[in-house]
Amino acid sequence: MDEDNLKVSYLGEKKLIKRIIAKSNIHNFPNIGDDAAIINMKSNFENLDNSYLIASSDMLIESHHFPKKMSHYQMGWKAVTVNVSDLAAMGAIPLGFLMNIAIPSNMKLSDFDYMIDGVLDACSYYKIPLIGGDTNQGDEIIISGTSLGKTHQNTLRKYGFKKGDLIGVTDKLGLSALGFQLISQNNDLNQLKEKNTTNAMNLIDLAIEKSLKPIAKINEGITLSNEKIASSATDITDGLASELYELYDGDKTNNPNSKLGIKIYEEKLKDSNFYKLSKLINYDPLDLILNFGEDFELLFTVNPDDYHKLKNIKINSNDFNFYIIGEITDSNKVEIELLDGDIKKLSSKGYEHLSN
Amino acid sequence: MDEDNLKVSYLGEKKLIKRIIAKSNIHNFPNIGDDAAIINMKSNFENLDNSYLIASSDMLIESHHFPKKMSHYQMGWKAVTVNVSDLAAMGAIPLGFLMNIAIPSNMKLSDFDYMIDGVLDACSYYKIPLIGGDTNQGDEIIISGTSLGKTHQNTLRKYGFKKGDLIGVTDKLGLSALGFQLISQNNDLNQLKEKNTTNAMNLIDLAIEKSLKPIAKINEGITLSNEKIASSATDITDGLASELYELYDGDKTNNPNSKLGIKIYEEKLKDSNFYKLSKLINYDPLDLILNFGEDFELLFTVNPDDYHKLKNIKINSNDFNFYIIGEITDSNKVEIELLDGDIKKLSSKGYEHLSN
Repeated sequence: MDEDNLKVSYLGEKKLIKRIIAKSNIHNFPNIGDDAAIINMKSNFENLDNSYLIASSDMLIESHHFPKKMSHYQMGWKAVTVNVSDLAAMGAIPLGFLMNIAIPSNMKLSDFDYMIDGVLDACSYYKIPLIGGDTNQGDEIIISGTSLGKTHQNTLRKYGFKKGDLIGVTDKLGLSALGFQLISQNNDLNQLKEKNTTNAMNLIDLAIEKSLKPIAKINEGITLSNEKIASSATDITDGLASELYELYDGDKTNNPNSKLGIKIYEEKLKDSNFYKLSKLINYDPLDLILNFGEDFELLFTVNPDDYHKLKNIKINSNDFNFYIIGEITDSNKVEIELLDGDIKKLSSKGYEHLSN
Repeated sequence: MDEDNLKVSYLGEKKLIKRIIAKSNIHNFPNIGDDAAIINMKSNFENLDNSYLIASSDMLIESHHFPKKMSHYQMGWKAVTVNVSDLAAMGAIPLGFLMNIAIPSNMKLSDFDYMIDGVLDACSYYKIPLIGGDTNQGDEIIISGTSLGKTHQNTLRKYGFKKGDLIGVTDKLGLSALGFQLISQNNDLNQLKEKNTTNAMNLIDLAIEKSLKPIAKINEGITLSNEKIASSATDITDGLASELYELYDGDKTNNPNSKLGIKIYEEKLKDSNFYKLSKLINYDPLDLILNFGEDFELLFTVNPDDYHKLKNIKINSNDFNFYIIGEITDSNKVEIELLDGDIKKLSSKGYEHLSN
């Protein structure tokens, strides 16, 4: 039979799992094959004091989370990134990844292979071995992952900041949202590039790349935790506004009497090429930054006395990339100062599933 | 608005998650709410030597894993059971459960509540706190779980048995398969009960109960591990035949030169009421036992010298329930001796997803 036209149903669940295991072995991941994954504590933890196991689960569904133009390889990659990003948000060192997938029985075996390659290449990139999971038949592609990690002492939480702490992000925001609009609106990209300045030309490619193959900031999270620089952190999956409220609410949950607030500045968020391009395709750039999400950048707070530390950090001999976008106030509100000087209360809109 | 007709979309993802957290708090589970769950190592592990973290993931999909007559409560319960059963198979003590769910936006809020009650009641029953997860919109109900546990020293694997070891199961098999047939065939259950002897009458209710609300044998697994009785174990999810091959293959993977085989006896598997009832609804009872699965009983091996230990074990002051169904041989085959004395090689059929 022509290998190109083979469907996954030709092999069946057990042979598909063997196929995943064979691919996994190429990546030198530990053997999968018992009822559950087994992680040796002694070889992964130095001691029990101040040691924490970090566990997070996220599910991606084809019709809701994967843009039509996303390749199967990118679907696999994104599913790992989404899960690893939660480890990054805690400052955790990866231990292992479990993956439950559902696939239609008529999925092409070659597409299945690409998807698994995407998963395993991402696992290699983040140094998080695939250690277990489950394969099922479903009506569409679903990848439900669980990432396990570990921290010592300074686990990054959604609370812990104080008045005056600076608010940082690990890169400019909104690019992924812009990329999604660019590919879903079927814009003529060449025409767009011509309309734009030379400087902005690369931005289109960058935005599309970021929406289709996002990168979790795992090393940045580990560094912020290990160096005890960040006073809190989360990852930006649902849009900056929503995540700012996660910090605001995290603080209130931890200390119900807290009057801490958050203030950010549009001027700090603005990138002129990004603003220009967004307007060209009729999107409000600030809306893309605040309310769409999928940036997978880290949002963190830092005591101003530690700012110089941040400037001097190296990750694999590169500077630690970050922008300060605001500060912790005592206003008991989440606010933004717009370019014209107006100060507005932010809504927590962000992106929410299952809402009318 | 009439609370009975409320749909989940009326609340949206974040409020649904808050609803889960509120229900979870009633069960005294730890707070969920950061980017990931945090498990304190010091309060969960006594030392690092011979300590293992056990992690397993299983996904259930409405159209494939939940019979039409299953209630939403039972769906939630089953999703936890399936995941906890893998911990039981390793002899692990539960640490935590993560749950990713997908639900249609027009799901009734009351059904959602029942489903979450099923999840949380099962978590309470198995003493495994809900520690994290994710809620998404999907076309049908999907519950993807991850169970975390711990073992010390004697983690139960799919290998480790020797020639002469006895093969045990923690209860009679096939009941769940029978239950599925009874409810899916729309049999007239009252008429069936009349046709049957008094002894068998309860069997119908028992079979249906077992198919709709299965129980993972978590305490049995922990006991077999702690008392160092079992030389190997797995749980029966895909049918006895398939699981026997899991042990057979597990042994070969661990020791490629092994000539160990497995022999079981139909006589030991037979329950006369079960056989009678199966035949009444035109099912081969042995086929139900061997090839359907979802028993969630433990299949284990034990050195014959330890047989007396098994007989004397108590779990919560009850006897340890088990049946010996065969033994480990040096035949290099998986065989069954039928009631008429015939010896047949077993096929590994069991139940497999995604096969033609």
